[in-house]
Amino acid sequence: MSYEKFVRTVVPYVPGEQPKDKDIIKLNTNECPYPPAPAVKKILDNMNYEDMRLYSDPEASKLVEAISCYYKVPEDQIFVGVGSDDVLSMAYLTFFGSDKPVIFPDITYSFYDVWAELYRVPYKTIPLDDDFMIPLEKFYSENTPNGGVIIANPNAPVGIFEPVSKIEEVVAHNKDSVVIVDEAYIDFGGESALPLIEKYDNLLVVQTFSKSRAMAGMRIGFAFGCKKLIKYMKDVKFSFNSYTMNIPSIEMGAAAISDDKYFKETCAKIVNTRERVKKELSELGFSFPDSKTNFLFAKHEKVSGEELFNALREQKIFVRHWNKDRIGDYLRITIGTDEQMDKMIGFLREYLK
Amino acid sequence: MSYEKFVRTVVPYVPGEQPKDKDIIKLNTNECPYPPAPAVKKILDNMNYEDMRLYSDPEASKLVEAISCYYKVPEDQIFVGVGSDDVLSMAYLTFFGSDKPVIFPDITYSFYDVWAELYRVPYKTIPLDDDFMIPLEKFYSENTPNGGVIIANPNAPVGIFEPVSKIEEVVAHNKDSVVIVDEAYIDFGGESALPLIEKYDNLLVVQTFSKSRAMAGMRIGFAFGCKKLIKYMKDVKFSFNSYTMNIPSIEMGAAAISDDKYFKETCAKIVNTRERVKKELSELGFSFPDSKTNFLFAKHEKVSGEELFNALREQKIFVRHWNKDRIGDYLRITIGTDEQMDKMIGFLREYLK
Repeated sequence: MSYEKFVRTVVPYVPGEQPKDKDIIKLNTNECPYPPAPAVKKILDNMNYEDMRLYSDPEASKLVEAISCYYKVPEDQIFVGVGSDDVLSMAYLTFFGSDKPVIFPDITYSFYDVWAELYRVPYKTIPLDDDFMIPLEKFYSENTPNGGVIIANPNAPVGIFEPVSKIEEVVAHNKDSVVIVDEAYIDFGGESALPLIEKYDNLLVVQTFSKSRAMAGMRIGFAFGCKKLIKYMKDVKFSFNSYTMNIPSIEMGAAAISDDKYFKETCAKIVNTRERVKKELSELGFSFPDSKTNFLFAKHEKVSGEELFNALREQKIFVRHWNKDRIGDYLRITIGTDEQMDKMIGFLREYLK
Repeated sequence: MSYEKFVRTVVPYVPGEQPKDKDIIKLNTNECPYPPAPAVKKILDNMNYEDMRLYSDPEASKLVEAISCYYKVPEDQIFVGVGSDDVLSMAYLTFFGSDKPVIFPDITYSFYDVWAELYRVPYKTIPLDDDFMIPLEKFYSENTPNGGVIIANPNAPVGIFEPVSKIEEVVAHNKDSVVIVDEAYIDFGGESALPLIEKYDNLLVVQTFSKSRAMAGMRIGFAFGCKKLIKYMKDVKFSFNSYTMNIPSIEMGAAAISDDKYFKETCAKIVNTRERVKKELSELGFSFPDSKTNFLFAKHEKVSGEELFNALREQKIFVRHWNKDRIGDYLRITIGTDEQMDKMIGFLREYLK
């Protein structure tokens, strides 16, 4: 049919598997191994199904207020969406309309090129150096003229965190582009670029409830920027869909933010486990960049990534592996509970003998 | 800043108000006055907050299976999204990429031109006739060359239903365009074009849980089409956001579909109330097109729409009114419970004396 020549054809992003078997040790999509805050349980237990007949608040005010209060950012500098993917996709649609390329590292979150393809925005990747560090000077507009910048900090899947002072240089050297800093993993030992939004009107900082707040299944992401950037994004969002967040997301999201003690304890537990696992994996012959996230990007000195991926899978331990240049020998291993990590390490110890 | 010249600037859709005052009789956004099916309550009451830590199923299989089973359509011919607005927006992005205009009626759901503006797709409106009927022959490609067609059936905000045989003619006369039939209000006395997807590979039929299934606050929409159309839409969707539907939407949506008896009873109650209200409003001097929806589009013989809108609002009765050509004298009144309608009619009877 001739309408087909006008169809937007794209090669979609492939997310990590969501197996239904509950016995699987699921270390493949960087979820939190601990439940959401107890305050979320309370809200869910008191939720009334009858309320669902009415539209949710298009502004998701209760959630925005909670984020505003916690991060001490005015409400009109906050954007919320259906997971940080939704927020980032809206940001591409809103800001990346130049003929010049959007730039990002060659090894990073693999959605960045997919959005560029989707919206037919030119893009250019800048290779990480041999230590998987982002060569940040190459992201300055005088070095790589661009129509937008997106950097994950810490970067995925490598896990390395760049100091905010270096991120600031990128923002300062790109006054004519919007710079998006994707901080999905910021709560595991990094430091947010959030305070810089006061100083730079071209900075968008994006975070998520899916990792540190243990609510991947609720789909909640958010962004901070100057008032003007957020207004532009909201206009696009309200031209796409009026009521993005459903009632449970708004209510349960607001509750999750309210329990700071639980949040900090959960993050600390994951960081502790990560540091312990680093030592044990090193002893088994693994090496990895220094992760400030809830995952490790690990390579064994002798055994290939693919072999280990399959061997772990047979034991019902799911990790992530990409058959790609430069990273084919690595596994991305989510930090689970101590018990889960012990099982994985125990198996690897035997297997690698 | 110079990045601003590349910002996608749009004038967003403005949804009807969502007041927080529970005393308001809310007849302004076509929600269902009755709660969702009891099966939804059961699912919500048994939902475990701990499950939210894991990503939701990207395919929303449980919901798709329930829709498949109920409508007897194979799963690969079903697309689901965050309300029918999300589904329609994805359909625009997927199918409406021609240089020729997308065509739709001049008086219809006011998101249709917003999406065209958002995606920078040319569009052309075709005026309803004097009786607010859609001149369907003008939608044939030989009469109006086009790059896509979207028709709401029943049409909003007028409420008129066009027989499926006439819709079929539009689909048959547009083999080179995708024809979207937006059936948000189909369950209140209309007949779906769904069976036509077997015969035409250029037809997309879109429905929602927000009206007849009383779940506006959960944000669930869905579409039917041939396998190929749905595959194209899914590729775009998975390039936008991997996990659109959160866990409560998938679970509660599937439950809502399962209770057919409740669904049919609810729709029948609304239709009964509507037919009764038609008579009473006629006696008060109102006229309206013959609605097959859960709203009436009513004009008084003497008093202006704006005056009535404001008078009702003072009584905490919210209806919808647009200060627009041709429809400025009309109110769009959602069919509420009998008690709500009695209050409204009682007030109007006094006011119009």
